[in-house]
Amino acid sequence: MNTFGRIYRITSFGESHGPAIGGIIEGIPSGITIDYNKVQTALNRRRPGQSKISTQRKELDKVQFLSGIFEGKTTGTPIGFLIENTNNKSGDYSHLRHAYRPSHADFTYDQKYAHRDYRGGGRSSARTTASIVVAGALAQHIIPEIKISAYVNAVGGLKLNKDYSQLNLSLIEQTPVRCPDLTMAQQFVDLIENTKKNGDSIGGQITCVVQNVPAGLGEPVFDKLQARLAYAMMNIPAVKGFEYGSGFKGSEMTGSRHNDIFNPDGSTKTNFSGGIQGGISNGMDIYFKLAFKPVATIMQAQRSIDNKTNIIQLEAKGRHDPCVVPRAVPIVEALASIVMADFFLLQKTNKS
Amino acid sequence: MNTFGRIYRITSFGESHGPAIGGIIEGIPSGITIDYNKVQTALNRRRPGQSKISTQRKELDKVQFLSGIFEGKTTGTPIGFLIENTNNKSGDYSHLRHAYRPSHADFTYDQKYAHRDYRGGGRSSARTTASIVVAGALAQHIIPEIKISAYVNAVGGLKLNKDYSQLNLSLIEQTPVRCPDLTMAQQFVDLIENTKKNGDSIGGQITCVVQNVPAGLGEPVFDKLQARLAYAMMNIPAVKGFEYGSGFKGSEMTGSRHNDIFNPDGSTKTNFSGGIQGGISNGMDIYFKLAFKPVATIMQAQRSIDNKTNIIQLEAKGRHDPCVVPRAVPIVEALASIVMADFFLLQKTNKS
Amino acid sequence: MNTFGRIYRITSFGESHGPAIGGIIEGIPSGITIDYNKVQTALNRRRPGQSKISTQRKELDKVQFLSGIFEGKTTGTPIGFLIENTNNKSGDYSHLRHAYRPSHADFTYDQKYAHRDYRGGGRSSARTTASIVVAGALAQHIIPEIKISAYVNAVGGLKLNKDYSQLNLSLIEQTPVRCPDLTMAQQFVDLIENTKKNGDSIGGQITCVVQNVPAGLGEPVFDKLQARLAYAMMNIPAVKGFEYGSGFKGSEMTGSRHNDIFNPDGSTKTNFSGGIQGGISNGMDIYFKLAFKPVATIMQAQRSIDNKTNIIQLEAKGRHDPCVVPRAVPIVEALASIVMADFFLLQKTNKS
Amino acid sequence: MNTFGRIYRITSFGESHGPAIGGIIEGIPSGITIDYNKVQTALNRRRPGQSKISTQRKELDKVQFLSGIFEGKTTGTPIGFLIENTNNKSGDYSHLRHAYRPSHADFTYDQKYAHRDYRGGGRSSARTTASIVVAGALAQHIIPEIKISAYVNAVGGLKLNKDYSQLNLSLIEQTPVRCPDLTMAQQFVDLIENTKKNGDSIGGQITCVVQNVPAGLGEPVFDKLQARLAYAMMNIPAVKGFEYGSGFKGSEMTGSRHNDIFNPDGSTKTNFSGGIQGGISNGMDIYFKLAFKPVATIMQAQRSIDNKTNIIQLEAKGRHDPCVVPRAVPIVEALASIVMADFFLLQKTNKS
Repeated sequence: MNTFGRIYRITSFGESHGPAIGGIIEGIPSGITIDYNKVQTALNRRRPGQSKISTQRKELDKVQFLSGIFEGKTTGTPIGFLIENTNNKSGDYSHLRHAYRPSHADFTYDQKYAHRDYRGGGRSSARTTASIVVAGALAQHIIPEIKISAYVNAVGGLKLNKDYSQLNLSLIEQTPVRCPDLTMAQQFVDLIENTKKNGDSIGGQITCVVQNVPAGLGEPVFDKLQARLAYAMMNIPAVKGFEYGSGFKGSEMTGSRHNDIFNPDGSTKTNFSGGIQGGISNGMDIYFKLAFKPVATIMQAQRSIDNKTNIIQLEAKGRHDPCVVPRAVPIVEALASIVMADFFLLQKTNKS
Repeated sequence: MNTFGRIYRITSFGESHGPAIGGIIEGIPSGITIDYNKVQTALNRRRPGQSKISTQRKELDKVQFLSGIFEGKTTGTPIGFLIENTNNKSGDYSHLRHAYRPSHADFTYDQKYAHRDYRGGGRSSARTTASIVVAGALAQHIIPEIKISAYVNAVGGLKLNKDYSQLNLSLIEQTPVRCPDLTMAQQFVDLIENTKKNGDSIGGQITCVVQNVPAGLGEPVFDKLQARLAYAMMNIPAVKGFEYGSGFKGSEMTGSRHNDIFNPDGSTKTNFSGGIQGGISNGMDIYFKLAFKPVATIMQAQRSIDNKTNIIQLEAKGRHDPCVVPRAVPIVEALASIVMADFFLLQKTNKS
Repeated sequence: MNTFGRIYRITSFGESHGPAIGGIIEGIPSGITIDYNKVQTALNRRRPGQSKISTQRKELDKVQFLSGIFEGKTTGTPIGFLIENTNNKSGDYSHLRHAYRPSHADFTYDQKYAHRDYRGGGRSSARTTASIVVAGALAQHIIPEIKISAYVNAVGGLKLNKDYSQLNLSLIEQTPVRCPDLTMAQQFVDLIENTKKNGDSIGGQITCVVQNVPAGLGEPVFDKLQARLAYAMMNIPAVKGFEYGSGFKGSEMTGSRHNDIFNPDGSTKTNFSGGIQGGISNGMDIYFKLAFKPVATIMQAQRSIDNKTNIIQLEAKGRHDPCVVPRAVPIVEALASIVMADFFLLQKTNKS
Repeated sequence: MNTFGRIYRITSFGESHGPAIGGIIEGIPSGITIDYNKVQTALNRRRPGQSKISTQRKELDKVQFLSGIFEGKTTGTPIGFLIENTNNKSGDYSHLRHAYRPSHADFTYDQKYAHRDYRGGGRSSARTTASIVVAGALAQHIIPEIKISAYVNAVGGLKLNKDYSQLNLSLIEQTPVRCPDLTMAQQFVDLIENTKKNGDSIGGQITCVVQNVPAGLGEPVFDKLQARLAYAMMNIPAVKGFEYGSGFKGSEMTGSRHNDIFNPDGSTKTNFSGGIQGGISNGMDIYFKLAFKPVATIMQAQRSIDNKTNIIQLEAKGRHDPCVVPRAVPIVEALASIVMADFFLLQKTNKS
């Protein structure tokens, strides 16, 4: 239940305020040279404190590999790794010992487990996504030819009304908000800063594009490629929706318009299918969109309850993101990489 | 890869034009009295030919249980079952032997497997969902107190602008289109009939509500309740999108508005969370929405290619649904039942 | 829990006196031509009534494939199959409804499930091994170059004091007892017939040899090749012990004698390792031995109890094997084939 | 492939000479108070250097828990842990870079992975069993009422000719060789010391007894209790054989003698079944025996080859156990604990 993947697998452990988070990556083939820089770069893109619009909380997020790599190359055995929690001032959280913060996991964890680590959200903290980023960066080593790019396409009610094919995806990292349309990026930044001034938070959306995918990845019935992608993405904290290809808009269309007519080479003139037909990649671009709710922690007083059903008044402390989508971009890319690497390896067993 | 579930599991087999489809259900506790009528009723709701707006193809969809039930009660051992394919006139499909129909799985299956059963879509046929309906009906026997209701909330561009709480869900089955708003239901029917007259198909949306869920179901990191629901639903043929709770709309909101404030009893005043917080049920209603694309088979001539890259002209034959969402309603309910039963059983292991 | 295998998998269902037993085989690559004769031959070797020393109960054991094979070749999708239970006169078993037969599974099933199918052992019947034989015969299609031969090396206290390398394995099927040493085979037959005359049963041993195995199959820590073999074999009803390579005798040896010294080509001068080192095949022959207890059903009166703790007198009815090892030979080969095919496919994912 | 267990699961990582070994334990219920002393005691029993008959290599084997425990109690979330490799002088192993030691995993790892960590056996080192001991000690917290005791019953050709029921199991830890028969223990010690003087190694056997097991644990077909036990145990380095209950001796018996006749209370007069019938526990003692080959590292010159097929001369260095069975006792107990805890938790899902 803490493992994701079938051949390429990440098993995760850790809470935000324990000594460390980390995981075990299995299924990586032997003999692959690890690009440590690529791994750390991915972690840095997720790390708090990276820009003025993200939380100013500092976390180093330095990964230590404990096994499975020898003389810089994978041995084919599991890669254990950890990331120390260097910034966990647990004292900050003692007021939350018995409190249930609205739209957090405090109440549900207590219902499920009775005993929980209440510091910083414990296991429910988005900090656990750092391990996913590590696993994603290693996954990309398996499928170097597949190009995975995510970007922010909406913040609150502001939406980028352009398709990914109309954008220059190489500009994504040039803006703190990770939107390749520089004009819209500035509007997103302004909206996030205003939201922060109000002590509030705001939602947003991320689009992800997976290019240069070989045809034939995916399984027919219960492990359709889109189903594994949705399964992965819906595990990201704050994600409320997933759509791929024509998505919700596609439900309004007729078949005569939605059908993707073939070119003689097997590519299609349109791509409403989103690169997947019958659960299996067809070689066209895979693209999907995710909705993120506004984060629950806001800098405003809120009424709530504690575990004795007392009504309490909550005041958030600490440093929090007013909008998580910019920092979620590398997490989305990481999960997409894990899903694609897993299918890529699995497909090797499909041929006799 | 043909199995769904961890404790309560369905493993599926079958193609549309083989002798039978079926599956094996594992993890069902012993001593449960099977309500055969409930199972067959669910199958009848999915069956083709049930109303004027669905395909007139006749399939009996009679399930035969082969094991795991003795003297009307489950024994705790796996339940093997099959549904014969009684209506498979394979001759109908010989013209498709080498053809790639647009937006079907013909091309991708050939890319993946090289050798495929081309009759009626083979394994990619929505006929395989009949096995899911059987597994769902049995799952409901494990969680009789949980109420699962799905309905059509949109056909093409027509949308029901009411929340599930404003509807009388007991009316769902009174309309052939499975929409509990009788006025809107008639508009949906009219649109589907017009689409059919045009030889076209059309998409739609389904809303599903899961009520009376105990708090505490779901896992924190990789098996969040919403992630398992999305994983299940995105395996339904034609589904292009999933959202739960506030969904895509939630991405436009601020935290101060989106946060669900607690009542003293642990329930919440609003339910933007959709009954799930931190991946775990909180006891409020779980609700989600699915987007279905228009089915690819239309009664119009289409240009396409064959497996030698020749350009061909396709004319659909046979009897097909112009809009699948009415018949998809029991499939959605079945998968929701499987997911909930699985979490319900898994949660029994969480307590020492 | 009813599935065996990771890539090549068999999921099993069925009780001895239900309408049918069967299973679903997943992970078989596409495009493999099925040799139906090979499958049926394997089933016939397991079938009751095949010789004078086995039970005279008649079962046809005719397999019906329901999916996954098209025009004689695998499609890569799951293969559903069933074998009808044609000889199930349930009336024979009504006297066992409340009885607990000694050393059967009656008592334990009641403890576990409370409700059980008591006819002919239900799910605990060795009849379920017919599905394993089907899965094994298909597995051999994936690894045609690997040669798997099992034979009876002991019946009761009579033991064949020859190593497999001293035997002509092509003679195995020439004797009803499946022992390639014809002199010893006759002694085994005589002992079994005498045992039968006494209304008793007797145990025995099977040796299995796996030849022409590529080096590199197996996993280092929790899925060692010998561990998967033992896991498979210990699921065969009546098996009480497993040893491979030097086995229990090896525990008496010193390292200086037990170490297998290399030839320059990587083969070894001796093979105490049994073809596996560190859990991974080294290309030498894999060989292992299984102990089978005498079957619990004997033609003698026995005291026992019923589910109300009454003392009862049992008289066995029906036709039963006095010694199961001859008929267990194809089951051992089948499971070895499943294990080897599974590792063979898995190994394809180990290379980048 | 590096995970063992279905509900209670250990996923393992680590090589003998990397920075650390460790693992992730999942499925442990919340609210259990961890007895750290019990965990460390188990580790100390496995640790090298604990007595004059074991290797004098010093390893602290101090476990660090990184997650899943809060204020001394389990939270129900995964428990990440590591054990630092403090004694890894990698220089010792440079002469083995290209060498294939006889009956080690050097050759097979190279065949499988091409790139391997050759220091101290890497992933094939028995050092990885320390993680198993941690997982076993935690498993015992879930099933405190089940008593698991292993002891050495043979070293080389010397065998203890007593049944476990004739021994005082509380004496096991009083001898360095972990044999509760003090006379035989001394003979075992003498034999091991003589073997060591000769620069040789020697095999042995371990018996394990599992007492106070509730009836009803185990699954009918592919996860029989004995099959999971064998699967677990055969993963221990050097184990060549497993037998339970009557074992190999049972294959010589007749059914009339082997059948365990019931007492009116459901217990049995004899226990040839070894506490398991039809794969499911019957409440009687479970007992099994393991054969260990002599360890491959000996203090004698041996001819071997390198990875270029050159013939080389090997001289072992370092400090090694002449006989591993005394230190393997806690590993056997740990794996038995993991298997029993896993079945115990799984059984909770079998009741509706």
